[in-house]
Amino acid sequence: MGYSYEIRDFDAGGRIGKFKLGEKILDTPNLFPVVSPFENLIPPKDLYHHFGVQSIFTNAYILYKNQEKNLEIISKGLHKHLEFPGIIATDSGAFQDYMYAGEIKIQPDEIEPFQEQIGSDCPVILDIPVQTTDPFELAENKINKTIHRAKENVLRRKRDDTAWFGPIHGSIYPELLKKSAIEMSKLDFGIYAIGGVVKTFIDYRFDLDVAILLEVKKWLRADRPLHMFGLGLPAFFSLAVACGADLFDSAAYILYAKDDRYFTLTGTKSLRDLYEFPCHCPVCTSYTPQELMKEDKQIRIVALAKHNLYHSFSEIRTIRNSIKEGTLWDLVEHRVHAHPKFIKALKVVKNNPEQFLNLLNLNQSRGQMILSDLSVYRPHFQYFRLKVANYTIPKERTHLFFIPELDLPSIQSNSVKNWIKLLKKHPQWPEMQLCLVSNILGIIPLELAEIYPASQHEGTVDPFQYVNLLHLLEKEISRFFTRNDIRSRQISILIPDTFRNEYQEEESFPIKTHIISILKDIIIKISHEADISILHNIPQKKE
Amino acid sequence: MGYSYEIRDFDAGGRIGKFKLGEKILDTPNLFPVVSPFENLIPPKDLYHHFGVQSIFTNAYILYKNQEKNLEIISKGLHKHLEFPGIIATDSGAFQDYMYAGEIKIQPDEIEPFQEQIGSDCPVILDIPVQTTDPFELAENKINKTIHRAKENVLRRKRDDTAWFGPIHGSIYPELLKKSAIEMSKLDFGIYAIGGVVKTFIDYRFDLDVAILLEVKKWLRADRPLHMFGLGLPAFFSLAVACGADLFDSAAYILYAKDDRYFTLTGTKSLRDLYEFPCHCPVCTSYTPQELMKEDKQIRIVALAKHNLYHSFSEIRTIRNSIKEGTLWDLVEHRVHAHPKFIKALKVVKNNPEQFLNLLNLNQSRGQMILSDLSVYRPHFQYFRLKVANYTIPKERTHLFFIPELDLPSIQSNSVKNWIKLLKKHPQWPEMQLCLVSNILGIIPLELAEIYPASQHEGTVDPFQYVNLLHLLEKEISRFFTRNDIRSRQISILIPDTFRNEYQEEESFPIKTHIISILKDIIIKISHEADISILHNIPQKKE
Repeated sequence: MGYSYEIRDFDAGGRIGKFKLGEKILDTPNLFPVVSPFENLIPPKDLYHHFGVQSIFTNAYILYKNQEKNLEIISKGLHKHLEFPGIIATDSGAFQDYMYAGEIKIQPDEIEPFQEQIGSDCPVILDIPVQTTDPFELAENKINKTIHRAKENVLRRKRDDTAWFGPIHGSIYPELLKKSAIEMSKLDFGIYAIGGVVKTFIDYRFDLDVAILLEVKKWLRADRPLHMFGLGLPAFFSLAVACGADLFDSAAYILYAKDDRYFTLTGTKSLRDLYEFPCHCPVCTSYTPQELMKEDKQIRIVALAKHNLYHSFSEIRTIRNSIKEGTLWDLVEHRVHAHPKFIKALKVVKNNPEQFLNLLNLNQSRGQMILSDLSVYRPHFQYFRLKVANYTIPKERTHLFFIPELDLPSIQSNSVKNWIKLLKKHPQWPEMQLCLVSNILGIIPLELAEIYPASQHEGTVDPFQYVNLLHLLEKEISRFFTRNDIRSRQISILIPDTFRNEYQEEESFPIKTHIISILKDIIIKISHEADISILHNIPQKKE
Repeated sequence: MGYSYEIRDFDAGGRIGKFKLGEKILDTPNLFPVVSPFENLIPPKDLYHHFGVQSIFTNAYILYKNQEKNLEIISKGLHKHLEFPGIIATDSGAFQDYMYAGEIKIQPDEIEPFQEQIGSDCPVILDIPVQTTDPFELAENKINKTIHRAKENVLRRKRDDTAWFGPIHGSIYPELLKKSAIEMSKLDFGIYAIGGVVKTFIDYRFDLDVAILLEVKKWLRADRPLHMFGLGLPAFFSLAVACGADLFDSAAYILYAKDDRYFTLTGTKSLRDLYEFPCHCPVCTSYTPQELMKEDKQIRIVALAKHNLYHSFSEIRTIRNSIKEGTLWDLVEHRVHAHPKFIKALKVVKNNPEQFLNLLNLNQSRGQMILSDLSVYRPHFQYFRLKVANYTIPKERTHLFFIPELDLPSIQSNSVKNWIKLLKKHPQWPEMQLCLVSNILGIIPLELAEIYPASQHEGTVDPFQYVNLLHLLEKEISRFFTRNDIRSRQISILIPDTFRNEYQEEESFPIKTHIISILKDIIIKISHEADISILHNIPQKKE
């Protein structure tokens, strides 16, 4: 095996890895710009030298079909032909078949050996593309055939310095995605790749893309990079990486350029509609949009394609930085607010938290930001709630004392610190179980108050505005009281009139937006006999 | 008067303008980088020639205090001294006084004429800074004194080729902001500026900044640009512009650089924590973070300051583009999802929609995006709801027929089009008032179905998840039925089992997340006698 993949860091479902193929290196997450096998407006060597591109994708099928040149390329080798010293991946024609169904007449035992002969680093087997419109049986037949071909491919391989792409299919059928991922995982592929998502992507059905990605990740071996074929839209990268994608390819950078379209984080813009260039990449610092509009079509395409590439790689780098920093969820929530369809896609993640729980990087220094009601479903928060669900109050603690979490998380607020100080002086303290009540996390027993991310988050939401959050908190709090017998215990709930906010100003306690206001009601639903006192101050030790 | 200000375009509360002072031009929104009056790591002429900077800010107080050089600068002129041919604004020392309260001993009749003598384009009067901690009376005294000084300044002016800055104060007191804005508006200033917000800004109290800005805009003359002193954080620019700010200054670009800090849209990062540079500005394409860390402190500061400037101007240009494009609200909602404190600030806007209603650009080609529950409070939607509130159903229409808005807005969905077609064939059609029922807009009478933004929005939210939205819709719908007598009318509500979605797939109607499901309940609350039928299909003309 001529390749290796080493995971260096991780956050959310995303990871930073180093894929090595001989001397060639591919840092993941990363992007393969798609290049033509013959003529390119931006030569591949420029991609390598000026854009820091480590890997490109080209089409072996078109090379193979070119009977004038294919022998020459076999003898010269693909790297010399394209003048690209990095990793070259080659497509087998299956994608053409997928886009223009049934047009391609070629056999695996022709195109697969050809890819080895020309020296492709990462060839793709000739898989059978599944269309989203395929009925289940047809889709199943197709994936069975792809798996069969994959097995044949493994036996037929001649070179040991290539990393084959193993395409995963299944379209909208979870059981087929599962089967495809499991069966392909058993075979030795250097890179796995989800296929058949280009049409969902063109339709902006990012929610389907995410659902497919999450299903595949559930079953696929984790020790290889996962590529998503044909998803070249930078604003989608962070969400896809957070869900476990490591690699992308982009023909979009040049296809959009041909259509005079310019990438930005809030959507692609038509050059005609741009008043000025917002970016400071080498292209955007040499032209105004008006100047570029006046240039020849060819010059315009090159300029826009270059900008689109700079922009795409900026986003890849931003993502790698956030994984390092532990802020990938923050980034994702920022990016999805560029388009309603991205937000719809993030909601798919919200409904599948369990997949992220075993991927959590608990060695985090950065806090989690509460940016919307979706933030409270981040796996780190889910994980903490699970911790609380498993926390048992020691028997000897017969007095449960609840204080509200304030504007600073957990025990960081000065008012909270002060309340704790006063309570510790209370003669009953040894029998007390102190808990914070949080709008984000529910109950926080003092013993867990400094476990990540109880103390490491910023921002809040009003649970009485977000019905799902309210139900979640009610459920978690009920679970806490059901688990920890309350009939034999005394319960005190502090609902202060005022508190000191983070700016050290006296502020009214926001009772209408704090879950502690209904804590008593939740407890009474569990047991009518509960002994509950509502306090407005911490009881002081009598002199 | 040597200056003019022309508004060229507008969106939300933001506007694109051209401020002319003699031959010098300042396109708004824009940013004044703050430069030292003597030595600069990035020379002002580079700002002009390489960064396209049209205007800078420097400190006249420091120049004035330099007894060795101030006569030389008077004779040479500030533009020659700084080698900057664009607009130079000068601060009077009041800001120093604000930051280091009470340290500055100088009189208006010294520093104000001095600014004219050195040829400042935009001098600032010596205002009295109000601190957020000032009690009301003290704050009131200060603004009275500033207004008095402003009047004296107007009388004392010698040059007619300057545009004086008129500072507005009032801190957290709306009545003082109002007084300050009204009184200053009566005097002739070229640029107005909100002062005293730096400390709120340092504390990330963007909600206070926005509240202050909105209050000032309410009373300030609209024919001059409005500057916000000291708010140099790019991620805040779009929200501030949407609330009516036209100009900013930034010392932050260099101050942060001195602290090895690097601007990104999702926060400033420490150079040390950067794994790679995400940006492709001229600085970020010449260094890696590791290389820059090894450079001399001085080189590092210059490099980071340049990046921070490129980044700041990228955001200014992005904002100008979105105003042109009519997508400023989209941009704002994207940007605020970088930090919880920005979101808190956007909520201040939500509570003050009336200020934006008379600023609406109804000549929009782009739709509004529903990016979060906050989107439904955008002024364009509020405006539409007002239109509906004023719509009276013609007397002869005795049959009110309600159909749900689907995944495409207003009448764009094929299912909706089909229902309308069928209804038009119905013998009762002439007596029918057809209305759509929308989760975003409430009731949409067919006659208003193509008025912006009924047909021009994308995305949706579930009103049963967002309590505020649910209440808003209930209120609007009740208002509609109260206004349009329902007791004498027949009411039909279509609740289909399925519909054709935007991808032409048959989909179950999402009854649990559609406001039409409770339309009957809302009507019955108004009148128990209402004659309501729930239909699952459009009634067909009998053969």
